[in-house]
Amino acid sequence: MEQVDFRAKILTEALPYIKAYHGKTIVIKYGGGAMLSQKLQQSIASDIALMKYVGISPVVVHGGGEEISSFMKQLGLEVEFIDGLRKTDAQTMEAVKMVLVGKINKQLVNMINSHGNLAVGLSGDDGHLILARKKETPVDLGFVGEVEKINTKIANDLIDNGFIPVIASVGSDNQGQSYNINADTVAAAIATSLKANKLIFLTDVKGIYSDYHDKSSLLSKLNLKKCQQLLTNGQIEGGMIPKVEASIVAVKAGVEKAHILDGTTAHALLLEIFTNEGVGTMIYS
Amino acid sequence: MEQVDFRAKILTEALPYIKAYHGKTIVIKYGGGAMLSQKLQQSIASDIALMKYVGISPVVVHGGGEEISSFMKQLGLEVEFIDGLRKTDAQTMEAVKMVLVGKINKQLVNMINSHGNLAVGLSGDDGHLILARKKETPVDLGFVGEVEKINTKIANDLIDNGFIPVIASVGSDNQGQSYNINADTVAAAIATSLKANKLIFLTDVKGIYSDYHDKSSLLSKLNLKKCQQLLTNGQIEGGMIPKVEASIVAVKAGVEKAHILDGTTAHALLLEIFTNEGVGTMIYS
Amino acid sequence: MEQVDFRAKILTEALPYIKAYHGKTIVIKYGGGAMLSQKLQQSIASDIALMKYVGISPVVVHGGGEEISSFMKQLGLEVEFIDGLRKTDAQTMEAVKMVLVGKINKQLVNMINSHGNLAVGLSGDDGHLILARKKETPVDLGFVGEVEKINTKIANDLIDNGFIPVIASVGSDNQGQSYNINADTVAAAIATSLKANKLIFLTDVKGIYSDYHDKSSLLSKLNLKKCQQLLTNGQIEGGMIPKVEASIVAVKAGVEKAHILDGTTAHALLLEIFTNEGVGTMIYS
Amino acid sequence: MEQVDFRAKILTEALPYIKAYHGKTIVIKYGGGAMLSQKLQQSIASDIALMKYVGISPVVVHGGGEEISSFMKQLGLEVEFIDGLRKTDAQTMEAVKMVLVGKINKQLVNMINSHGNLAVGLSGDDGHLILARKKETPVDLGFVGEVEKINTKIANDLIDNGFIPVIASVGSDNQGQSYNINADTVAAAIATSLKANKLIFLTDVKGIYSDYHDKSSLLSKLNLKKCQQLLTNGQIEGGMIPKVEASIVAVKAGVEKAHILDGTTAHALLLEIFTNEGVGTMIYS
Amino acid sequence: MEQVDFRAKILTEALPYIKAYHGKTIVIKYGGGAMLSQKLQQSIASDIALMKYVGISPVVVHGGGEEISSFMKQLGLEVEFIDGLRKTDAQTMEAVKMVLVGKINKQLVNMINSHGNLAVGLSGDDGHLILARKKETPVDLGFVGEVEKINTKIANDLIDNGFIPVIASVGSDNQGQSYNINADTVAAAIATSLKANKLIFLTDVKGIYSDYHDKSSLLSKLNLKKCQQLLTNGQIEGGMIPKVEASIVAVKAGVEKAHILDGTTAHALLLEIFTNEGVGTMIYS
Amino acid sequence: MEQVDFRAKILTEALPYIKAYHGKTIVIKYGGGAMLSQKLQQSIASDIALMKYVGISPVVVHGGGEEISSFMKQLGLEVEFIDGLRKTDAQTMEAVKMVLVGKINKQLVNMINSHGNLAVGLSGDDGHLILARKKETPVDLGFVGEVEKINTKIANDLIDNGFIPVIASVGSDNQGQSYNINADTVAAAIATSLKANKLIFLTDVKGIYSDYHDKSSLLSKLNLKKCQQLLTNGQIEGGMIPKVEASIVAVKAGVEKAHILDGTTAHALLLEIFTNEGVGTMIYS
Repeated sequence: MEQVDFRAKILTEALPYIKAYHGKTIVIKYGGGAMLSQKLQQSIASDIALMKYVGISPVVVHGGGEEISSFMKQLGLEVEFIDGLRKTDAQTMEAVKMVLVGKINKQLVNMINSHGNLAVGLSGDDGHLILARKKETPVDLGFVGEVEKINTKIANDLIDNGFIPVIASVGSDNQGQSYNINADTVAAAIATSLKANKLIFLTDVKGIYSDYHDKSSLLSKLNLKKCQQLLTNGQIEGGMIPKVEASIVAVKAGVEKAHILDGTTAHALLLEIFTNEGVGTMIYS
Repeated sequence: MEQVDFRAKILTEALPYIKAYHGKTIVIKYGGGAMLSQKLQQSIASDIALMKYVGISPVVVHGGGEEISSFMKQLGLEVEFIDGLRKTDAQTMEAVKMVLVGKINKQLVNMINSHGNLAVGLSGDDGHLILARKKETPVDLGFVGEVEKINTKIANDLIDNGFIPVIASVGSDNQGQSYNINADTVAAAIATSLKANKLIFLTDVKGIYSDYHDKSSLLSKLNLKKCQQLLTNGQIEGGMIPKVEASIVAVKAGVEKAHILDGTTAHALLLEIFTNEGVGTMIYS
Repeated sequence: MEQVDFRAKILTEALPYIKAYHGKTIVIKYGGGAMLSQKLQQSIASDIALMKYVGISPVVVHGGGEEISSFMKQLGLEVEFIDGLRKTDAQTMEAVKMVLVGKINKQLVNMINSHGNLAVGLSGDDGHLILARKKETPVDLGFVGEVEKINTKIANDLIDNGFIPVIASVGSDNQGQSYNINADTVAAAIATSLKANKLIFLTDVKGIYSDYHDKSSLLSKLNLKKCQQLLTNGQIEGGMIPKVEASIVAVKAGVEKAHILDGTTAHALLLEIFTNEGVGTMIYS
Repeated sequence: MEQVDFRAKILTEALPYIKAYHGKTIVIKYGGGAMLSQKLQQSIASDIALMKYVGISPVVVHGGGEEISSFMKQLGLEVEFIDGLRKTDAQTMEAVKMVLVGKINKQLVNMINSHGNLAVGLSGDDGHLILARKKETPVDLGFVGEVEKINTKIANDLIDNGFIPVIASVGSDNQGQSYNINADTVAAAIATSLKANKLIFLTDVKGIYSDYHDKSSLLSKLNLKKCQQLLTNGQIEGGMIPKVEASIVAVKAGVEKAHILDGTTAHALLLEIFTNEGVGTMIYS
Repeated sequence: MEQVDFRAKILTEALPYIKAYHGKTIVIKYGGGAMLSQKLQQSIASDIALMKYVGISPVVVHGGGEEISSFMKQLGLEVEFIDGLRKTDAQTMEAVKMVLVGKINKQLVNMINSHGNLAVGLSGDDGHLILARKKETPVDLGFVGEVEKINTKIANDLIDNGFIPVIASVGSDNQGQSYNINADTVAAAIATSLKANKLIFLTDVKGIYSDYHDKSSLLSKLNLKKCQQLLTNGQIEGGMIPKVEASIVAVKAGVEKAHILDGTTAHALLLEIFTNEGVGTMIYS
Repeated sequence: MEQVDFRAKILTEALPYIKAYHGKTIVIKYGGGAMLSQKLQQSIASDIALMKYVGISPVVVHGGGEEISSFMKQLGLEVEFIDGLRKTDAQTMEAVKMVLVGKINKQLVNMINSHGNLAVGLSGDDGHLILARKKETPVDLGFVGEVEKINTKIANDLIDNGFIPVIASVGSDNQGQSYNINADTVAAAIATSLKANKLIFLTDVKGIYSDYHDKSSLLSKLNLKKCQQLLTNGQIEGGMIPKVEASIVAVKAGVEKAHILDGTTAHALLLEIFTNEGVGTMIYS
């Protein structure tokens, strides 16, 4: 009986959050450790479906780092990273698309769809969502690209029709050449173009630390200026750098808030959106 | 931490119910003991707002029994009931409308609207929602009426425009004469006309008992046939009879399920709709 | 036969007016002497229905002065006015709403609806149409309020759906506390927010006089400047002051014309809108 | 003052008629004596504009009998009628279209448009509104046709866009060959296809007589059966026969009522639609 | 077989043009020599229908010079031109409308409609599309007019409903007086008001020559400045002057390109729109 | 010049076909030899884009037979067919999706999109377009499936939003398990569910032969009965059998016509749709 009361209390506490985010678009970058177990994926898929049913418009962007490398090894291709970017020749590009679009994207789509016919997978090719160009780098990395333009029509149409777009971070240029693009920057570009209210990075660290050697220094929120300082002073560690940079880009371009959450905690997304107990780090302008 | 996990678990468990009732209309008859305290009213208002925000279309129907009698006494009018129906002369009719439409209806509207500009109060006069006629009774009861027709346009338009209709159980005939109508039968007529999925009576008993002297004999569900038997055999007690009769009428006319819940338990409505622990009695065809 | 010709002539003469007001919103403040007899109310209801059928969007705002006082006396409450404003304690506020919303509003709705399912009654609570706040006065008058904001959605939705909103001049704040607000100022605020073409005060005097002791000095029209002068010079008598002030506010805020008509003349509204014989006083910028 | 009261009374009496015909389509066949003077044309144009502004959808169908003959004489063409049908060779057909479409149709359009940009002239060619075929007759009459099919799209689109279609009674076959068609039968076909509520013949007689030699025997209404009897018994005189036959066809096909009015009386149309004093003869099923 | 390949090649080459003009409005002024043979008319009608079916919105404007004069002679009216403008008394005006609206317009409509129920003929009277006024000229020319305003609603509604407006170049003033207007200036005014992408003059010369005595000096394109120079320097010959002036007006007012084509070549329109081989002269800003 | 005439002639001849197929849905099964060269793919992509631009709704369904086998060999997986169906264990299923969805589907999407942002790739998972179940076979073939239901919403929404769905022939059940399904049967199911007008198999044979040993016996059309006879009599050779069976299923279920074309001929699709020279075999009911 007590438990029933508590149950009612929790649902009731969600009301102001459901109200606040009603009709808003929230872009979720999903990747890294948060993708590793099927159970975690199911928990995140359930959170995303719940968001949709209560009137929020979630949009998912994903990469697929480790699976790509292991698949490349299976095919006998050499895996090489330069400054954190994957060297991408034609064969690698093909392998990247097969893993991202043909495997991971559809796994996510299927998991969300266990809660209804909700998700539709997209690559940057579909409706030419992501117009890409070659990224200029000191060393030629092949088909590593960057976003030139987001053609939002297909994403907006799907949202208007009641679907959840699930987007693999590959784009193509006007000649149909595919490019491998960092999923964090794709998520920021998508969030900006769709005029999203929030951009959430589901990753495998707790958030941003004022001193990343000191796990007690987790920051629950910080503004753009402070964020930029930490970056400039080298206080953000490796894998977190593109997420923080992408957050800055998005918030500067009008996305209200960016969040970095530990997606390896079950239902981190749900707790962040629907309860008082914020988790992770929030970046605001 | 444990509590956070539990919190996530509860929200997640609501998902299949939110999905199942998405876009459905649910008519809630609100009255009796469930109306007595302001705290109960607030809890019910919060439940109704939550239903709306997660994509359900709630419609509220209410009477106002005890408040009408106490107001009539304040005005020096005689309160008289014959066979459970209030004898209603012209002065009584005016008093009924003032209490129902001018007071109780707006209290409910305001309580729901503390969660957003959601509720719009209606009497049967508005858009001539409830076309009424004099009820034939053995003894002339004056302006006691019954539903002749529900003109659904105003209710459907409000629902389509994102509002929650809150309906006081008075109607009028084509000459503009008002009638006092039993709120349970109004709720059944509204549920039927709006092709609602559910009709819920929020009252102050636990539900229907197979033997109403034995509080351990509460029935969690029963079909129309069984329901009719209990009525015929005199096993339904006084105040419950119109609710059971209204439930039978509505379910026969296509409303999928009727529920009789104890609205004096906080958030009974929420728990009924969004959790596994059904409360009260469900009637199905 | 002659009469038939005259009949055709009159209908034909209405054509340019029907054309001119097609699709326009006209706010009608209804009150005072124009409300006293049922016959007058029927005549006005018929005029409003006619306006609706020929393509105009009428919106009615009403108060209920004398009926409130007589009801308060019936309840044994003390009636007290300070500077023309009713001292409003909690019991008075409740009585005001019961009379305005539960009685007068529905009488008007029913009278209009004798011509079709056209009218829908609203108080400021419904869809939170009138967000109110306490009015600052030299002496504390209790729950006497003023308009903070008109939430137009519910009124516009009803108009778009083919209904005539009939609005009682009570509002509420965000905590659900009700306030008694002068109906003339409510009418001006509604007319401004709905971008009405006209604001018409149906009252029991002929209009504005250049000298109110001299009944032959009725002004058929005057501009804002002249109007302000009369006010400043004390040439507007008591009950007319809030109407003239409200007219000035509305015309300054973009309502094209305000009219003060003698609603005790049968069909004054109709004659003003549809014939050459303007009646009363018109205020323009 | 008395006159003002009478004015209000007349406008008010129009209300139930305006309500009754709201949103209904009324097809008006205009021709013969009712077309002769410009003043009559103006009066009819004003009636039609008024109908439109108060929410009715009028559709006008016209022929042009006498003007065609006099134009043909001007061109030196021979005018010949066989059994009341004009013998129509290629030159005649061209002359018919020039008069009907290039002259009379645009005169009517311009007269209605003096009250707003309301009317749009159509021939049977436009949007191929009237698909025609050669009429089989004992003697070959050339390009005298009959309606094969009404392609309603263009007429319905114009009505939906707020216009009044004004239709000249010429059609064409699928090879683009034009045909001259009796305007009464065109009006009946249009009324049937548009599911009109009424079909009104504006002509130059008072209506149908039970005995057409006896001007006191005018019938104010008669049913299909009685109508058929009069026809069979030869009690309908020459020019009235096609109107009566067309009325029967239309009423049998679902048009609620057909009327035969004397359009030479000013505002006959207005008086028929908006007042109690019906004029002419009404045919009903 | 070779021919089949060539066939496929030609259709495929149309793709980029179909894509480029998708959803664009193109105004075609049709007149002069291009109107002379029925075969030419059929070829142009087929081109226009094709444009419509592949997603372009063609609008046709036509005059009717020579047919008007010959019809006037048939009626015994005197034909007189002053500075290239037809002296237009009341009888002439009537004759002009009969020929343009009652004959030529419907011929064009019927020819286009042999490919579907596509075309709807309009004169400037319909929906009062062309509000006209008397043109000031050194010598009074009677009812020679100029465009005062294009009321675009009827044309835009027809386009939105899937029709091709075919417009005769006559207008009327607010009193219903008709005016004869040069079709080239009407076409420019229509193109400008409809925000057309292109204005095409189908005439009987090849285009503009840098030296009109030298048929080898045809200009395939020229900009506004150059165009103005040729005009000023008297290098444009008689009948071409109004077309060049109208082109300049339209391009200055925002129409992207004006074209002057030889419509006596079969399918000149089709070849201009859908192939690489541009024909005639293009004027751009 | 002659060539220009011919060009106009060809475009003009396409008109009746463009008209006939306007707004119709045509499902194109693309596979086998027609997929082999990039040039063929480009020619087909151009044909499909052209169809879209001229108002037809093409939908593409594809498999990927040979590429799957060669990719499986690259991964060291065993390729085994039993009765023409690929034995599909979990690893094979993963490989199938990677090739079909991650590679071939996006190649087709990119090729079509070189003509505009038109195509959107879908697998059966997206919006759960293809609900699949295990196919019962004499020998267990693992994840070889068949269509249980087409959830048309995502395909219809894309078509309504102006896109071309490009569908890979894999489906999944309600547990998210993927199945490999024969693309010919998927195409038939899609065509039936979308109420397509035509189902076209682009393959590498000329069509159906009355005697497949005799290349001169190609049938340009045959009805269902004849088609069934050929099948029953064993006169259809191996790879053609599923296409013929799928054609029969589709035509029986309401698809007007099924076509089997040799897609290795450049622009076979275009020539079939837009010219008189039908190619291949047409099956009708």
